[in-house]
Parts: sequence; C-alpha cells; structure tokens
Amino acid sequence: MPLASQTWEERAYNMQSEVRLNSVQLKPPYLLFFGDVKDKGHAKTGLGLIHWRKDFCVGQLCIHGCGIGSGLPDMTIDEAAAAGAGSIVIGVASEGGSIPPQWLDSLVHAARAGLDVVSGMHARLVDFPELVDAAQKSGARLIDIRTPPKEIPIGSGVKRSGKRLLTVGTDCAVGKKYTALAVEKELRLRGINADFRASGQTGIMIAGEGIPIDSVVSDFLSGAAEMLSPEAPDDHWDIIEGQGALSHPSFAGVSLGLLHGSQPDALILCHDPSRTHLLGTGGESRFEILPLTESIQQCLGLARRVNPNARFVGVSINTSEISADEQRRLYEQYALETGLPVADPIRDGVSAIVDNLLSGEANL
Amino acid sequence: MPLASQTWEERAYNMQSEVRLNSVQLKPPYLLFFGDVKDKGHAKTGLGLIHWRKDFCVGQLCIHGCGIGSGLPDMTIDEAAAAGAGSIVIGVASEGGSIPPQWLDSLVHAARAGLDVVSGMHARLVDFPELVDAAQKSGARLIDIRTPPKEIPIGSGVKRSGKRLLTVGTDCAVGKKYTALAVEKELRLRGINADFRASGQTGIMIAGEGIPIDSVVSDFLSGAAEMLSPEAPDDHWDIIEGQGALSHPSFAGVSLGLLHGSQPDALILCHDPSRTHLLGTGGESRFEILPLTESIQQCLGLARRVNPNARFVGVSINTSEISADEQRRLYEQYALETGLPVADPIRDGVSAIVDNLLSGEANL
Repeated sequence: MPLASQTWEERAYNMQSEVRLNSVQLKPPYLLFFGDVKDKGHAKTGLGLIHWRKDFCVGQLCIHGCGIGSGLPDMTIDEAAAAGAGSIVIGVASEGGSIPPQWLDSLVHAARAGLDVVSGMHARLVDFPELVDAAQKSGARLIDIRTPPKEIPIGSGVKRSGKRLLTVGTDCAVGKKYTALAVEKELRLRGINADFRASGQTGIMIAGEGIPIDSVVSDFLSGAAEMLSPEAPDDHWDIIEGQGALSHPSFAGVSLGLLHGSQPDALILCHDPSRTHLLGTGGESRFEILPLTESIQQCLGLARRVNPNARFVGVSINTSEISADEQRRLYEQYALETGLPVADPIRDGVSAIVDNLLSGEANL
Repeated sequence: MPLASQTWEERAYNMQSEVRLNSVQLKPPYLLFFGDVKDKGHAKTGLGLIHWRKDFCVGQLCIHGCGIGSGLPDMTIDEAAAAGAGSIVIGVASEGGSIPPQWLDSLVHAARAGLDVVSGMHARLVDFPELVDAAQKSGARLIDIRTPPKEIPIGSGVKRSGKRLLTVGTDCAVGKKYTALAVEKELRLRGINADFRASGQTGIMIAGEGIPIDSVVSDFLSGAAEMLSPEAPDDHWDIIEGQGALSHPSFAGVSLGLLHGSQPDALILCHDPSRTHLLGTGGESRFEILPLTESIQQCLGLARRVNPNARFVGVSINTSEISADEQRRLYEQYALETGLPVADPIRDGVSAIVDNLLSGEANL
C-alpha cells in the first residue's frame, strides 16, 4: 500500500500486526539505551542483559543526566550503526512504564538509522507517530516486548517431545529468571543441548525471543506456554522462566497456566529466606510465605496433571541478606525438609542442582 | 470533537474506550436477534436469556431462513423501538464467532433507531464502519460483551465484605452458569439479598452486566475477579459463575485466577456423570475427569489461601443423559463420597443445596 495514503494509525496498526505474528525475535548486537536514568536499580533490565549476554551488547547510549556506568563503551547512534548494531534496546524500567519525551529524539534517530527499537515499557512504541514514521522509512522494526504474539491457540495439553525444566517460586521476584539462566549456562558448559525460554520482558531481551506470558489474554495462557517451549529433540532441555507464584493471590492464575503449558519434567523452587510475607501484600491482608514443602506439594499436585513424572530437583535461594551463620543453618534445614540440593545461584552456582537433575534423569 | 474530523477508526476507538471503562451494563428490554440461525443449539445464548430473564425480553427478530420459535412475539425493529426496547441482543453463537454480512442490515437499522447493539461474538461490532456510523449518529452503544473493562487493577487479595459463592466444575460446560442462576433465584425466593455475577458472555447477557473473565489480560485475572464481586453488605450473597476447571490443562489458569479473586465462602461442584474425559481433549492426550473428592480437595487447598473458611456446600449434576436407576445409584454414591447434598438443578432445583448453604452459615 503506498505510504502516503496511510494515516499513522493505520501504519502503526500494520506494524503492530507484523511484530505480533510470531513470538518476538530480536536482532543483535544491541546498543543499550539508558536514557537519563540516575541509579542502577532502574537500569536492571539493561544491566541484566549485559550480565547474561555481554557478547550481544556493542555499546551504551546515555543522554544528559544519565549516571550509569555499565562497563560498555559509550557510543552515538551513528557509531553504533557503523559498528553493525541491529537494535537499540531500552535498558531502563521507568516509573509507570512510560516513555518520557526526552528519550524520543534518540529513539527516532536510531529508527531512522535502521536500528530496531526494542522496549519492554508499558507505553507502546507504535503509539508514537514520529517513531512509526522513522521506522517505516528505514525498514526498522518497533518491538514492544510486552505485546504478545497474535495467533496463540487454546492450550491442548498434548504432550510434546523434548525435556523441560520450569523455575517456580514461593513468591514473585525470588530469582526464577536468574536461576533458569544459570541452569541453561551450566547445562551448555556440560555440552548438553539446552535453551532458556523467556516468559517476561527482561528475560525476552536476554534470550532475544520469548512470550510475555502475563500480557496474554487469559483464555490463551496455557496455549502461550505450550508455544513457548515447542516440540524438541528427545535429549533437549528447555529451561523455562517461571512467573509469579501459585500461592500469590495476584498472580497464581498466570503461574498455573504457565505450569500446565510447560508440562515440566523437572522443577526448581526459588525462595528468598529473608522474606516472611508475599511481595505486594500488606496491612490486614498480608499473606505469609508458605513453607517450602507445602509449596512443593501444591505445585506437584497441579503439575502431575500434565506430566505424571514431574519432580523437584533443587531449591534455589537468595542469601544476599543473610549472615554466614544463618546461611549454614538454612542450607541444612532446607535440605533436610525437602531432600533436595540447596544453592544460591549467585554465590554457589547451580552445579549441585544440575547434578541432581542429570542423575535423576539417568534413573528414569 | 466534531464528527467530520474523525475517521471511523478513531470513532470506533473512542466508542470502544467508552464501553470498556466499566464492566458492561446492558439496557433492557431486549429485542432478541436470531439472524438466520437454523437450530436451537446455535441459539443457546438467546434461549438462555429468555429462560432466565423473560421479563427483560420484548420480542424476537428473525431474518429470512431463521427456524427459531422462542416463544417471544415476532417484531420489526421499528415495532420494538416503539415498544421501548433498549437493546438488540444477538442471541446466536455462529461458527467461529463471526458476524455474517446478511445480519448487518438489521443491526445497522437497530443502531440507527437508537437501540444499543449487544454482541458476544468474537468479531467486534466496533470493527464495522457502518455500524459505528449509525450508532454515533443516534447515540446508541455498540457493546462487545467479550471486550473486558479497561481499568482493571492487579488483584490485591484484600478481603472484601459480603458473602460469596462460586460454582466450580470437574470440566468445562457442566452447568456452572445454570447452577449459579438457580441458586440466585432460590435465595431471592427466600428473601435473601443475592446477586448472580456473570463471568462469561451468555451470563453477562442474562445478568445485564459482568466481566468476560477469559478475555482479560492474564496479569489482571484475579483483579478482574475482585472487581466482579465488589464489597457488599454483610448479609449479601454474590453467586459467581465459574469458568473452566482447575483440572483442565486448557483453562486452569483462568479458573484459579477467578477462584482467588472471588474469595468464596461457599463452593458448589458441578459435574456431568456421563462424561469420562475432559471436553476438548482426545487421542493420546485424553484427560480423565478427576474423582469428585479429588476435585474438592484440590479446590479447597487453593481457595483457603484467600479464604480460610471456604467450604463446599453441594454437588450439582446433570442427569439428562442418565437412566432413572443409574441416577438413584449416583446420588447415593456422590452423597456418600462427599458428604454433601446432591441435586440436578433442572430436575430437582437447588433447595437442598441452599438449605445446606444457609444451615452452615448459622453455625459460623
């Protein structure tokens, strides 16, 4: 269709359709855009990307006022384009998920230079006419990570080939993504065919593809999870990033849809021992974190509906807030309670858990 | 904004925003539109509306080839408008949820006459420019029942005042809506303050309001369920229409989000004894229907996270496919297994279940 005859809404609609046809696939290497963010807390997305996919990151771009030293070289957009950058990735989580006006010049410039623009913000790139216009002219894509693919089927429950591990949690934000990435890395180091499967924005940026599972329409939840880890060779492991928690009254539905669609052979329970109550619950309606064994039993009861062989292979804990003495006590307590290897993936790595995963497999 | 300056897409977008602001509220009385449907099976939505809300239905409109005798008087659109009709309601479930071209004249005519047009189809009314145009001129609303409200919060888990009953199932399509409506009716007959809360398209048409829970973005599932049965007086019962089944690998996420957001004090298990396997599962991946006690235990385990007093008050069964002898045997077996009153709401009514609901309440 000739461009001149289209309004920007029509073009935005068409572009959106295009990026929604399949699960998102990003084009590396990346120029990381940190905007004018002041602290590392708000730059978690970009810093995570550098931590896990440094080879994919060619440089960083900050505008006036940015205080992030990510370790990447500073680059202008033209320098990044000359260095072969495929995408500019917004590495910031801003308040409310908006795209502030002072970022727009840089993003438009990048789109005009042919770089895909990648955003995990709530605000959608395709809602900015000047961005749509620039991308349309250069052929760059505007990729809103939070927009799920368009043609998701209803979940079928049909068993797929290949093996799957899902990280689950006693709460939100307890290291499910980090643990899954660490397991993928450890399996690959051992020469095992494994892929991290991302279900959230930051995970998708790290993996370069994935499905933002909590943005999918509910009816298609388990169908989306089935798409996320498709049929694979028998010796292949998909390591799936979990979301939410079955015991969290805000997100349990998402967790169950992801669990059912993932049909996991193996599960890892992620837990933050410094937390006594669920994140985001407070006042009279505080919800206590469930004991580990209760979380495990609840999850297995539901997982075995779709995979009778589902089993837990480890407990992944975050010990950053805990003294060395307390750590020793907790490792022993959790190991005794659950009969599983216990590890902090940042401090210990996940080799003990992966040993258990693979030894259990030998016994199947 | 002056109409002339808007494209139909802009107008459609604005209209859609309007109807999405709150949960849908319909304007009775209704002219039921059966299009050119040939059989009662495809007219279930309209026939259900007549069964439960006959007082709201002023007449029926069929076009060439329609074979439905609903018991309502035939009316033209102008006759219905003169009789005070507030809405024309599509009472048909067409193949694939499309709105066929031969219906459009009637719907446009109705919109022009000022009747709200109400549809539970997948195809959206707001995507038809001629309908948008007609509605805009008359001030009528185009109400796509499957479009959820716009401003749904994340679920909080905060306990709300009032009492709630949720119907759950061993499978999809086992009478959860019918049972909930029957309980609402029985409670009202006994002078008790009760409201049916609709979570699916047909239920929403019957109730005149509600939230299509499976159309909500996953992140907001339990938040939508919390909106659906808001705070209420202490002696008020919300009777909430369940969706899917916790044991169904296609829809369990929806069922759990609805369960958590509903915080039910009481639950009724709906079951079709003639079914051995879950609907929509087949071949090598057939899923057996769980035993009643297992369904009950699984559901209570999850429900008590948000309401420690949650309990089952009855089993609602569909005996239409079963001989009288077999029925007697099943009633006894189910009552023995579960310790609950067992009733077919169509054959027996739900008074035994409501008796148990209210007697249990007296013991609290």
